[in-house]
Parts: sequence; structure tokens; C-alpha cells
Amino acid sequence: MNEFDVIEKYFLPLAPRGLDNDAAVLDIPPGRELVVTSDTLNAGTHFPADASAADIAHKGLRVNLSDLAAMGADPYAYQLNLAFPQKPEANWLEKFTAALVADQEAFGIFCSGGDTTRINGPLSISITALGLVPAGQALTRSGAQDGDLIFLSDAVGDALIGLRVLQSEIETADADHFKAAYFKPRPRLDLAENLRAHAHAAIDVSDGLVADLAHICRGSGLAAHVDLTKIPFSAPAQTLLDSGLVSHADLLTGGDDYVLLFAVPENKAPLFPQSHIIGRFQAGDPAVHIRDLSGAAMSFSSTGWTHF
Amino acid sequence: MNEFDVIEKYFLPLAPRGLDNDAAVLDIPPGRELVVTSDTLNAGTHFPADASAADIAHKGLRVNLSDLAAMGADPYAYQLNLAFPQKPEANWLEKFTAALVADQEAFGIFCSGGDTTRINGPLSISITALGLVPAGQALTRSGAQDGDLIFLSDAVGDALIGLRVLQSEIETADADHFKAAYFKPRPRLDLAENLRAHAHAAIDVSDGLVADLAHICRGSGLAAHVDLTKIPFSAPAQTLLDSGLVSHADLLTGGDDYVLLFAVPENKAPLFPQSHIIGRFQAGDPAVHIRDLSGAAMSFSSTGWTHF
Repeated sequence: MNEFDVIEKYFLPLAPRGLDNDAAVLDIPPGRELVVTSDTLNAGTHFPADASAADIAHKGLRVNLSDLAAMGADPYAYQLNLAFPQKPEANWLEKFTAALVADQEAFGIFCSGGDTTRINGPLSISITALGLVPAGQALTRSGAQDGDLIFLSDAVGDALIGLRVLQSEIETADADHFKAAYFKPRPRLDLAENLRAHAHAAIDVSDGLVADLAHICRGSGLAAHVDLTKIPFSAPAQTLLDSGLVSHADLLTGGDDYVLLFAVPENKAPLFPQSHIIGRFQAGDPAVHIRDLSGAAMSFSSTGWTHF
Repeated sequence: MNEFDVIEKYFLPLAPRGLDNDAAVLDIPPGRELVVTSDTLNAGTHFPADASAADIAHKGLRVNLSDLAAMGADPYAYQLNLAFPQKPEANWLEKFTAALVADQEAFGIFCSGGDTTRINGPLSISITALGLVPAGQALTRSGAQDGDLIFLSDAVGDALIGLRVLQSEIETADADHFKAAYFKPRPRLDLAENLRAHAHAAIDVSDGLVADLAHICRGSGLAAHVDLTKIPFSAPAQTLLDSGLVSHADLLTGGDDYVLLFAVPENKAPLFPQSHIIGRFQAGDPAVHIRDLSGAAMSFSSTGWTHF
């Protein structure tokens, strides 16, 4: 089975409109703008080299979907670019594409094309996702206003713990919970419509809560005042916090959460009943201020992930 | 200088609309469809590991632009995904981005975003290019009709020779000519409007003339009859053919040409005066038939490039 056979057998089923041409042709409905985002994950850097085919597929697609959600966009199509260290095995391809098919159905997106290559190095998956948003309604990092409440859609920190579990740095009975948080983030596309209508700014937490909140602060020219007691952590994470195996600072700077952080005016707060109010944006130098359980200002040696 | 500083200093100048958000928001003019294509180039596989920053930039972007041209699309924006083996040096980044700026101006495209990552392996550049085409006018591989003439926009084979020169397999006084063909293909975007109006099918020659012509044959359900004497080769390539250092079969199957191959009805042939008529599509089993200089049928042990 050569490259073309692999594409026809395994990747064509992801692409209901075919993979026959040099490029895909996509119609954009009137009144919609296109939202475009890319994320690359490399084995050994972004996920353990022994990660399963399904986990790589889920994470590769979902981190992009999370970016679409943060923009208030609805998923449309994605380009799948895969670099393989050697010819991929049928079993691996079956599991990889089955996971993509499941996520395509779950999140309403299809594969519009991509490229399959060889690399003298680790597996690399680079996805560019396309979304649609009503014209003029895309969310940015720069729209937060003085007095807006800071919302967090979900608990943070589980993915960081998941990575430490995978690296055998932490042992816990909740290992599966944390590994799932690491490999299968849940992009909050269900929030997109409500965010478009009522939020002033949004971002997805990929670099860590502190770093991504700082992005909104810089974009919007505001200070963020956050109360640690209001930040949601999962019950399994709280157990590890209580036992001292992880710190709050770890969980606020670890990244890979792929939850949404957004700014909402106070009078619209009741419209986000499932999300968590963790603080408030206020006039001031663009910086993140977090009060710990005792009321003291927290400081962070590193605010989040960077590649170099 | 950390990752964010590198992005701000070197990549932000490529992106006139900013890189501030999780995704780019692009307007699509009414009556236009979006054309999307991706190509990944990995050091050591798609270009020599010691290739210059400028050469990698030119080739990475232009191979995508060639796909847009083959669809009859006008360039719009591109996502730039780079995986670096180590933190890139300032000098490398300056030359890489200067080459992209030059091509952005030459071809009318801008960077809409992307991702910059680390990889425990070779440099990888994966670009997804977006183009626009009047609705319903995109070209495909499947529209060729019985009797259409087969057109080739430019000479083929120079890039294959360029690769052999780079690999020190061929020595020639025209080395620079061939290396430029390999690293700086000229995407024929200037033909896009004319192709939309008058061509029935098109493809860019990336896998090799024989392989890509076979793609049109399969897509359109036609046989292709080609006369080797009509296929254009550059004067430097002809010199190497005459001296026996390369064969016609090499030049027809080498790939990396990024010229356009297209089907035009005979009565429209005068509208493509700069392109070369190399044969004709006719009813028959989808296959490529090439007559050599003596009139005998050529056969090929390999029809073109595949990754595995």
C-alpha cells in the first residue's frame, strides 16, 4: 500500500467532499466571516511518543476546536497535515481515523484536505481549522472593559497533572481522569453562540491560566484581579492539592487546559450559569493579580508554557 | 528572546492584520468561494538539511501558491506552521521572513497566523494557503473532455536536475539555474483568470508530469496521448539530455516542477499562446501514453514521487 492507497483507504472517509483536487473549494454563506487557526503537535514535545493513535487524533483536532470556540466561531472544516517517521501501520491508521470520525460527528466539522509526508523525526500533526462566525461578531482578546467579570468555563490544572502522571512524576488512583483531561480536552463550542452575544473578550487557556489571562489584560489594557478561592479545580485535583503533590501555582501555569476564559459585563453574568466567576477586570496596568487563600498576592516564577 | 518575542519581532511583520487572537478573522467577498490547500516540507526529506532560510521560505510558500493557481484561485492568506529543532537564530529568522515578505508582495498574499513549535527532529514547514475564486469557477482534475488539448505552462525537469545537483550527483555549469528551479518555483498565478475562463481541467505538476497527467486522466475518465517532441525542456536541461547525464524519463517523473498542466478545447488554444501543447485527451482507458522521438511508446518504471 503506497501513499496514494493510504490516503484513499484511510483519509478519504474523513473527507465527504473528496480529496481529488489540488485544493478544496468551500462555500462561505453570506453574512459570515471565516475564522482560521492552526496548532501543531509534535511527538515527544507536545505529547508522549508512546501516545495512542486515538489520543493523538483527539488532541490534535480538539486544541484547534478550542481556538474556534474562543473566537465564538462554529466549526466548518479542517486541513490535516501529518508527517510520519515511517510508513504508518494499518492498525494505527484505523484507530487514528476512527477517532477523527468520532470527533467530526461530535463537533460538526469535516476534513477538507491536507498533506501526508515523511519526516526523519517524530510524528507531527499540524491542523488548520476553519470556522464561521456572523460578520462582526468574532470575539477577540482586546474587548474586555473596566468592571467586566472574569469567567472561567471549567476547572484548570487537570491536564498538567495528566502530563505528570504520564511522565510517572505523580501516582494517583485518578490517573485515568487526568490522562483524559490531557488527551481529550472538551472544546467549549457549546458556549460560542452565548459568547458572541454577551461576552466582551475571550481566549482559550492553552498556555496556562495566568499567561492567557495576561493576554486579555494586554489586549484590553486592563488589570485582572482574581480570587484563588473562586478558581474551580476538579475533585481529584483538589485531593492532590490537599496532599501537597501539586501546588496552586502549578495548576494555574501548566497549560493544556483548553477551557475558556472570558469577560462578561456584570449584568449579563446570569446568562452564564454553568461558568465560574473568578474575578474582575479593572482599570490599571495590564497585569494579573491573584489573591491566595490568605488574601496575599501570589507570584509566579513562570507564567506559562513557551517553546523557547 | 523567548517564543513570544520571536513571534512579535519576526512573524508579526508578515501579518498586517495582527497575530493577537486565537484565530484570524477573514472576510470572504460575496460571490467568492474559498480555496484551501496545504503542503508540508520537512528538512532532509523535501529539501536538503543545509538549505538556506530564504530557499526554504520561498519553496514552502510557492508550492502552496502553485496549488491555488491550479484551481484557478487568487491568493488570499496563509497559515504558517513551523517546527524548529532548536531555538531559531536571529539571522536565520531575518532571512526567512524577508523572503516571505518578498513573496507576499510578489504574489499578493499575507500571513493570517500559524503556530511555532519545537520538534525533536528536523525543521518542518507546513503551510495552509487560502485563495478565492468566483463561485462555481474553480478548476478541477475531472473536467477534461474528449478532444481537449493538453497544455503545459513551462518546461519540466529542471527541479529534478536541481535536486541532483544539490546531492552532488550532477556537475554542471548551469548549477545555479537548476537549484533556482528546485527552490524557487514560479507559481503560475498569472494564468488563473484565463484558466477559469477557458480551461476544462488543471493540475500543478508536483509529483511528476506523468503522475499528474494520470491524475487528470483518472479524474476525467480519459486517455492522454502525448508527444515527447512537444514537451518543453529548458536549454540547460537539453544540454544534459544531449550528453546523457539525464534521461527524458527522469525529467517526466521527477516532480517538484510546480508548473501547470491543463485541458483546453481546441478552439480556445490560441488564448494560451505562451503555453505548450503537448498532446490531446481522448476517449479510452484512463492512462498516459507518451510517444518518444522515434514514435515508440515510452514506459516508466516509476511514474512519480510518493512518500511511502
